[in-house]
Amino acid sequence: MPPAPDIRIPLDVPSEEQERYRENYRTITHGTGRLMLFAGDQKVEHLNDDFYGEGIHPDDADPEHLFRIASRARIGVFATQLGMIARYGEDYRDVPYLVKLNSKTNLVGTTQRDPLSSELHLVRQVVDLRDRTGLAILGVGYTIYLGSEYEPMMLFQAAQIVNNAHANGLTTVLWMYPRGKAVKDERDPHLIAGAAGVAATLGSDFVKVNPPKAGGTMDAALLREAAAAGGRTGVVCAGGSHADAPEFLQQLHDQIHVGGTVGNATGRNIHQRPLDEAVRFCNAISAITLDDAGVAEAVGIYEGGK
Amino acid sequence: MPPAPDIRIPLDVPSEEQERYRENYRTITHGTGRLMLFAGDQKVEHLNDDFYGEGIHPDDADPEHLFRIASRARIGVFATQLGMIARYGEDYRDVPYLVKLNSKTNLVGTTQRDPLSSELHLVRQVVDLRDRTGLAILGVGYTIYLGSEYEPMMLFQAAQIVNNAHANGLTTVLWMYPRGKAVKDERDPHLIAGAAGVAATLGSDFVKVNPPKAGGTMDAALLREAAAAGGRTGVVCAGGSHADAPEFLQQLHDQIHVGGTVGNATGRNIHQRPLDEAVRFCNAISAITLDDAGVAEAVGIYEGGK
Amino acid sequence: MPPAPDIRIPLDVPSEEQERYRENYRTITHGTGRLMLFAGDQKVEHLNDDFYGEGIHPDDADPEHLFRIASRARIGVFATQLGMIARYGEDYRDVPYLVKLNSKTNLVGTTQRDPLSSELHLVRQVVDLRDRTGLAILGVGYTIYLGSEYEPMMLFQAAQIVNNAHANGLTTVLWMYPRGKAVKDERDPHLIAGAAGVAATLGSDFVKVNPPKAGGTMDAALLREAAAAGGRTGVVCAGGSHADAPEFLQQLHDQIHVGGTVGNATGRNIHQRPLDEAVRFCNAISAITLDDAGVAEAVGIYEGGK
Amino acid sequence: MPPAPDIRIPLDVPSEEQERYRENYRTITHGTGRLMLFAGDQKVEHLNDDFYGEGIHPDDADPEHLFRIASRARIGVFATQLGMIARYGEDYRDVPYLVKLNSKTNLVGTTQRDPLSSELHLVRQVVDLRDRTGLAILGVGYTIYLGSEYEPMMLFQAAQIVNNAHANGLTTVLWMYPRGKAVKDERDPHLIAGAAGVAATLGSDFVKVNPPKAGGTMDAALLREAAAAGGRTGVVCAGGSHADAPEFLQQLHDQIHVGGTVGNATGRNIHQRPLDEAVRFCNAISAITLDDAGVAEAVGIYEGGK
Amino acid sequence: MPPAPDIRIPLDVPSEEQERYRENYRTITHGTGRLMLFAGDQKVEHLNDDFYGEGIHPDDADPEHLFRIASRARIGVFATQLGMIARYGEDYRDVPYLVKLNSKTNLVGTTQRDPLSSELHLVRQVVDLRDRTGLAILGVGYTIYLGSEYEPMMLFQAAQIVNNAHANGLTTVLWMYPRGKAVKDERDPHLIAGAAGVAATLGSDFVKVNPPKAGGTMDAALLREAAAAGGRTGVVCAGGSHADAPEFLQQLHDQIHVGGTVGNATGRNIHQRPLDEAVRFCNAISAITLDDAGVAEAVGIYEGGK
Repeated sequence: MPPAPDIRIPLDVPSEEQERYRENYRTITHGTGRLMLFAGDQKVEHLNDDFYGEGIHPDDADPEHLFRIASRARIGVFATQLGMIARYGEDYRDVPYLVKLNSKTNLVGTTQRDPLSSELHLVRQVVDLRDRTGLAILGVGYTIYLGSEYEPMMLFQAAQIVNNAHANGLTTVLWMYPRGKAVKDERDPHLIAGAAGVAATLGSDFVKVNPPKAGGTMDAALLREAAAAGGRTGVVCAGGSHADAPEFLQQLHDQIHVGGTVGNATGRNIHQRPLDEAVRFCNAISAITLDDAGVAEAVGIYEGGK
Repeated sequence: MPPAPDIRIPLDVPSEEQERYRENYRTITHGTGRLMLFAGDQKVEHLNDDFYGEGIHPDDADPEHLFRIASRARIGVFATQLGMIARYGEDYRDVPYLVKLNSKTNLVGTTQRDPLSSELHLVRQVVDLRDRTGLAILGVGYTIYLGSEYEPMMLFQAAQIVNNAHANGLTTVLWMYPRGKAVKDERDPHLIAGAAGVAATLGSDFVKVNPPKAGGTMDAALLREAAAAGGRTGVVCAGGSHADAPEFLQQLHDQIHVGGTVGNATGRNIHQRPLDEAVRFCNAISAITLDDAGVAEAVGIYEGGK
Repeated sequence: MPPAPDIRIPLDVPSEEQERYRENYRTITHGTGRLMLFAGDQKVEHLNDDFYGEGIHPDDADPEHLFRIASRARIGVFATQLGMIARYGEDYRDVPYLVKLNSKTNLVGTTQRDPLSSELHLVRQVVDLRDRTGLAILGVGYTIYLGSEYEPMMLFQAAQIVNNAHANGLTTVLWMYPRGKAVKDERDPHLIAGAAGVAATLGSDFVKVNPPKAGGTMDAALLREAAAAGGRTGVVCAGGSHADAPEFLQQLHDQIHVGGTVGNATGRNIHQRPLDEAVRFCNAISAITLDDAGVAEAVGIYEGGK
Repeated sequence: MPPAPDIRIPLDVPSEEQERYRENYRTITHGTGRLMLFAGDQKVEHLNDDFYGEGIHPDDADPEHLFRIASRARIGVFATQLGMIARYGEDYRDVPYLVKLNSKTNLVGTTQRDPLSSELHLVRQVVDLRDRTGLAILGVGYTIYLGSEYEPMMLFQAAQIVNNAHANGLTTVLWMYPRGKAVKDERDPHLIAGAAGVAATLGSDFVKVNPPKAGGTMDAALLREAAAAGGRTGVVCAGGSHADAPEFLQQLHDQIHVGGTVGNATGRNIHQRPLDEAVRFCNAISAITLDDAGVAEAVGIYEGGK
Repeated sequence: MPPAPDIRIPLDVPSEEQERYRENYRTITHGTGRLMLFAGDQKVEHLNDDFYGEGIHPDDADPEHLFRIASRARIGVFATQLGMIARYGEDYRDVPYLVKLNSKTNLVGTTQRDPLSSELHLVRQVVDLRDRTGLAILGVGYTIYLGSEYEPMMLFQAAQIVNNAHANGLTTVLWMYPRGKAVKDERDPHLIAGAAGVAATLGSDFVKVNPPKAGGTMDAALLREAAAAGGRTGVVCAGGSHADAPEFLQQLHDQIHVGGTVGNATGRNIHQRPLDEAVRFCNAISAITLDDAGVAEAVGIYEGGK
């Protein structure tokens, strides 16, 4: 298990919200400073591609599948849109939520127009929902497409969201993706490190990046530059492949122990599996992320032992 | 008659508005969870094409025709713009209304510019009208063109509208249409399922989709993917053809009992008929939607028996 | 004289403003339901083209000419911009005013860019001026270019203006002009009927359209479709030609008695004449519009008898 | 000396601000209704081109040169940006100021993109500065590029500024310049008259136009159409040439006595001279504008007699 | 040491904030009127290019390196984004901060689209952070790309920021860079002087410009025009080369004593060095800027003597 770090409370959290922020941070990291984020925002991002079709278990066709996994598995936080939480949250009050504040579909490609993902809900609406319902809404998330011609609008919204979220004791995760006509190689390690650095300047608690590649090949060591550039903003990374579970878990282990990341953000690799398997896969991921388990131990958890 | 479902109140309805929301939902679904939406927003969407010309009864030339039908027929809710309700509502206080909040004309085609349909009225203005007049304004509606270059603006407005409507005890219907240069096949079942899923992430009560086609042919079974993807957001569908009434009613029956939809949104097929016939046609639709009547029974209602 | 109709107060007029709305409506229609609108907003729309040059009387070079006519003639309402009223209104307190809220010049043509006419003043500012000065500001007007790529912005502003105007007891007139690259025939009767229908959905009291043509020829009967489509929103029409006065008055008579319009909006045809003649021409128009006078009688008024 | 006109207070000046407006108007016109505007906004409009280089006296390199002139010379009002007043105003409390509210550089040419000059400061900020400091801030100014594709935005900002300025007792000057791809001849007298008319519809106290030309030649008589079109909005004009002083003063005299303007707006022709000469040149201009002095007398003032 | 100037408080600083402004100004200039600005905003502007790679010391990979330098060295003010201050400021309470309010990445080049750098945080949020935490946040900064097609938006934001900053007792620095398709030579001395003049019209305390070149060659004397054009807005300049330290210090000395600037803004040249060397280099710069030290003395400080 990783050493429990002191929690540093950023200065944009006012004193009356510091205890809440501390608890939120402790909860989503299980007191470890590491984050296991279960990503469930793809119903907009990828429409129904991730939920129905060959190689996807029928359980995944129902949006409630995401909540069932989030409720039964050991996760840090479940990221999804506010509307989903409003509609299912009453039946899943035990889930730790992070509201993904922007989303776009994949219909308009970069060759047609540079990507813009605009805010759907305001931090104020998230706070209202939290305060009225008592749901465990612990953070908010936002995607920035660096290098898009709409970068200025997304940088502004992100900066405001981090500031407003902290003002209300919420933690933040920024999804930083270089994308647009100006971006030649979205997986360039140096560019991804730059993206992590931008998240640091925006004051986010965590930044989610895609795994960098050199010469088309992933290598966890390529993440070190990003981990350094993020500074106190922890870098979390997608497993990044549809590989089989052991390979996925090995990559995750390497990202943390070689690359210096502090966790993962995983969606499809989890929810495209049937419920029980998805839960076990979450638990395997969490064992590596939160307990410093080895890969073999994690594979054992996934395969059904415990 | 379909089983009366428990009404699930979404969490963005505050406690002081929950009773109103419950009653609104019960009223528009006649306690069945099914929705018969009489669509009367085409005076903007199609200008006068749907109201005057060959094959359209002269009754339809007068906007009041819509209100006469809505008043005499058995419907769930009548959807039209706020200005229409303001001008005719006093004489039709018995009609259950849903305010369609955005509309655009059909003049600018997709080849010229991707579609944008912007908000005309604010939820606050709908609530003011409801509260001052006591009219039965029970919900609001909004159209999103997924895949348009203006998708971000419409997603934002829709998300805000659902949130604000629920905050005021109003129900919501989103018209989800994939459209724009990036959309190759607007009727693709997988894409329509994705659109239903987006409505779910926005927390809408209902989503209206066009009937999907495979190889150019409609088949109610193609709706199953969308019905699943919508989750707790009920899918309603247009009858989708200018076919004769029995064929229309058979399609509707199939959509519900084969495709898994929870109702229909029908406009032109109703109001282009003379008043008495339009009323009987509404009632036939409602018999299928709300009473689980068979097609033969519904045709009988349409043809004048009762 | 036309039968004095009951005044239907739209529901977006709150109870505390209903008496004011009723009086405003009665005043601008002289209790007849018919509207004689003297249009004086062309100093922006046509720059100085309508006020100076061959065939235009020198009286028209001075903006005050408009006020002199409005003050001495029998009109329903004088439409001009707020700034004009602010500067001349003190000397013309007897004039019934309608504030035209948007205007654009004719410099940028449709081949260069689709038309956008944006709000200049807010309804709130009109109400402030009315309430502080006691001027007879009885309504507001706004132009929409249907089919322009900027249609969404103008539909939104128009919807808001009607709603806000009614909330303050003001009447409304929408100028509805199909225009833009997507519009093949601005005078198509079916398209103009559609435009009248849009004004109805926005809840306006009156809609001003251009006279439709079929095969390049005007015919008052072509207005019937628009008059029907407008429903409770009364259609007013430009005389539409620079023809001599008797021909103009015959056209107006036909528009009302054949086409079903409820009045006219006339500008250049009035103010390009010297003051006395302009006043007599106004009075002739009003005789037809407000008194159901015949054309011969109206021509007599214009020619100086009374 | 011209007859002291009655001051007409526009109706958008509320009663509690009428005395202030009257005093401001009287001050900037020296009680004559004529305006001598010393224009000092070119540090944005022309960058350093007007302040440094061949034929420009070194005094002009320092921004304070403008304030020194404004303080020592007889002027109506000194127009410059708010930031300049904030930084030098304490040392030049005797200067009558007009805040130029928008400005753009000359870098992006019309062939690249139509001109847009956006508001820099809000009327509210001008009023705050005036009220807190007691500076003689007597009016505000704004430039509109008629015929630009951005005309709607500038018309809106200008209309709001005039309304808000009058609401706070401030006088207004609009710089009206036809410019953009759609404008073939910026100096066309008929077009400039149209521009003056637009300023009238916006309710401005004064409008500044460039001197019109016919066949490439200036002629003061060409201004008569604009003077008429402006109505109660007084037309002021640039001297319009880098000609020698006597020629400049002759043109100004003609503009007033032949063209019907009520004054001038002059910048470079004043401040590119050394301080003493600039002061004498201002005084010469003021003698013509405010005292109805002849050209010979004015030249005498400029040349140092008094 | 330069003479301690009287501090001129601009008039947009209200009386209740004048003492704070005076102290802030005195602190960032060490009472000299000269400014040594340590620029640390490049994590957005240049992504990770300035922090990792050949010729950059590994210390620079960690964002905290910037704070360590700012804390140990003698500087006027450390400029960085709000998010960075929120996350590290608690551990570096002794640092004098200036919040850089806008930033953009270098991904989208000018050939693709003219530069736009939009506000990230509002002055209000800076003031909240200052007032709640007691951090020494003494000023704000903003970049304008003059000549960009987005110039109007940046001029507006900058004008508002200066006004709001002064209203809260904060000092201001504007980074003025001519850039965009319309700009042929970003280093043209006349153009840079124009840019300094624009900052003066916006009322900024300081303006940062790039060192001008003539015929591709830098020469401190070329700055004189800009220093004059800035007037009471002090011009600070980048050292502008990756030259060795003595050459850099000589250039800085010349900028001040030949070019008439009042200081420098330096980033990469400092933080790409290891911590101790970076601190000594800062101190050498400060010796020239704040103490009027000679180049040899400054080189001695850099090389380790004191």
